[in-house]
Amino acid sequence: MQTIGFIGLGLMGKPMAEHLLRVGYSLVLHNRNRTSVDELIALAHNSDFKPIPRAAGSPRQVAQASDVVITMLPNPAAVASVIDGDDGVLSGARAGAIVIDMSTSHPRLARELYAQGAARGVSVLDAPVSGGQVGAQQATLSIMVGGDADAFVRALPVLQVLGKNIVHVGGAGAGQIVKAANQIIVGLTIEAVAEALAFVQKAGVDGAKAREVMLGGFATSRILELHGQRMLQHNFVPGGRAETHLKDLTIALETAQVSGANLPITAQVAEMFQTLVERGFGGDDHSALWRIVADDWA
Amino acid sequence: MQTIGFIGLGLMGKPMAEHLLRVGYSLVLHNRNRTSVDELIALAHNSDFKPIPRAAGSPRQVAQASDVVITMLPNPAAVASVIDGDDGVLSGARAGAIVIDMSTSHPRLARELYAQGAARGVSVLDAPVSGGQVGAQQATLSIMVGGDADAFVRALPVLQVLGKNIVHVGGAGAGQIVKAANQIIVGLTIEAVAEALAFVQKAGVDGAKAREVMLGGFATSRILELHGQRMLQHNFVPGGRAETHLKDLTIALETAQVSGANLPITAQVAEMFQTLVERGFGGDDHSALWRIVADDWA
Repeated sequence: MQTIGFIGLGLMGKPMAEHLLRVGYSLVLHNRNRTSVDELIALAHNSDFKPIPRAAGSPRQVAQASDVVITMLPNPAAVASVIDGDDGVLSGARAGAIVIDMSTSHPRLARELYAQGAARGVSVLDAPVSGGQVGAQQATLSIMVGGDADAFVRALPVLQVLGKNIVHVGGAGAGQIVKAANQIIVGLTIEAVAEALAFVQKAGVDGAKAREVMLGGFATSRILELHGQRMLQHNFVPGGRAETHLKDLTIALETAQVSGANLPITAQVAEMFQTLVERGFGGDDHSALWRIVADDWA
Repeated sequence: MQTIGFIGLGLMGKPMAEHLLRVGYSLVLHNRNRTSVDELIALAHNSDFKPIPRAAGSPRQVAQASDVVITMLPNPAAVASVIDGDDGVLSGARAGAIVIDMSTSHPRLARELYAQGAARGVSVLDAPVSGGQVGAQQATLSIMVGGDADAFVRALPVLQVLGKNIVHVGGAGAGQIVKAANQIIVGLTIEAVAEALAFVQKAGVDGAKAREVMLGGFATSRILELHGQRMLQHNFVPGGRAETHLKDLTIALETAQVSGANLPITAQVAEMFQTLVERGFGGDDHSALWRIVADDWA
C-alpha cells in the first residue's frame, strides 16, 4: 500500500489522518505542534492499527518518505511555506509523487504550486473540502479537485477514504475557485437566515417554529438547519470561524476582481464579517453574522 | 364530510382543489375565469369522483354553502376583495365557519380579516405555503399557519390533504410573517447561487461541476439544486415570477419598517428584482436574478 504523508493535524486534518490510518495506509505525520502526531501514534498502538504511523521532523522529510503528501493547513501563507518553503514538501518530493493540498487557499497560489511541482515531476492537486469538522469526522466531506486528470484518478482511492462527493472540477486552481464559490453561498445564506429569523422575532413570532416550517419548503438548506439553530440558541462556539470566512471571501473578491466577476452582495457580507472581526468576534462561529443583523452583541 | 369552498383555481389552487376532490370532500368552486371550475367538474365526471363539485357565482355564494372556505389568490388586493368585499366570503359565511387564506398576503391584512371574521363568529386563518406548483401538485407543500389554535386544529385534516409540513406558527398574521421570512431566504439564496455560479464561470470553471460538488457540502440548498440548474440552463420560464417575489419582499420590508427589523441585504435584493421588472423581465422566474449578476440580458 502507498505511504501517505500528512501535514496539518488540526480540527480537520487529525480525523482525516485517522481515517487513513484505520484503512491501513502507512502514514508519515508532521504538525507544527507535535501533540497531534503523538496522539495518532498512541491511537495506533492502543487500537492495534498496523502499520504504526511515523513522525517526520519537517515537510521535506515527510515528502522524502511518501508516495502521496496531503496538506491541511489554515491559510495560504502556511500552504506556501509548507509546500514551497526551503524545507518544504516540494524540496523533498520524489518524481512521480502526488501532493494534495486540501487546505482552503488561493487559486493563484494553487496554480503556482502546480507549476513548481510540474517542474520537478510532482503532480500537485488543489482539493479543498466542504462539510466542516463533522464531515471530516464522518468522512462525508465534499472534495472539489483541481489539477491534472491523471493525477486525480491516481489520488481518488485516497480521497474516497476522506469524503463522499468528490468531483474533478478542472485544472490547477479550479478546486480553490469552487471552494471560494462555496464560501460565497455559505456566507450569503447565513446572512439570509439571519435576516429572516431576526425579522420574525422582531415581529413577535417564534423563530423556532418559523425555522421548522421553512425547513420543509423552498427556503430549506443545510445553513437554515445548522446555523439557523445556532442563531436561535445563541451558540457561536465554532465550527467555522468568522475570521476564517472573512479570509475566504477576501480570496473570492480578489479572484473576482481579476476575472471581472460582479459580486455586490458578497462584498457587503465580507464587510459584515470584517465588522465582526473588528468588534472582537472573529473567533465566533460564522453564524455570528446574526450579531450584526440583530444588533445583538451579548 | 365537510363542504369546502375553494376560490382561486390558478396554477397553485387548481391542483390543491383536485386533491380535496380525490379524497371525497364536497366542493363549491369559484374562480374569476370559469374554465378551471368547468375542468374540475369534468374531471370529477370522467374519473367518477363523488360528490361532483358545484360552481358558485360569487365568493359570497361559496361561503353560504361551505363549512370551510379556502382562498388561493395572487396578491393582497385580491384577498381583500374576495374575502372582505361587498360580495365577499365574510358577507356570506356562516357563524362557526373557517376561512383559510392560503395566498401570500400582507400580515396586516391577515390581522384585519381575522378581526372582521371574529366579529361575525367566523375563524380566519392565514396559511400561506412554500413549495411552488410542484408542491401543490404532489401535496408536499409546507404550510405556515397563523390564527387561533382551536381553528388550526379544526382545519388541520383539510390542510393535511394539501401539504406535509404544517406548523401553527402563532396568532393572526404570523403565517404571513413566516412566509415573508421564507421569501427573504429564498430571494437571498438565489442571489448567493447567482454570484457563486457567475464567479466560477468568469474564472473559467464549469458551473455544472461546481454545482454538483457544492450540493454535497454546507452550501447545499433546494435553491442551489433547482434554481442553480435553471441558471446553468438559462431557463427562466416560471415557476415563481420575479415580479411576485418583488411583491413578497416589499411586504417583508414594509413589515420590517413597522417592527424595526434590520434587513440590509433584503432591501438590496428587492432593488435587483425591481430592476428586473423595470427592464421587462418581471414575468421571468425569480432565478433570473442571474441576469443582473451576470449582466446577461439574452
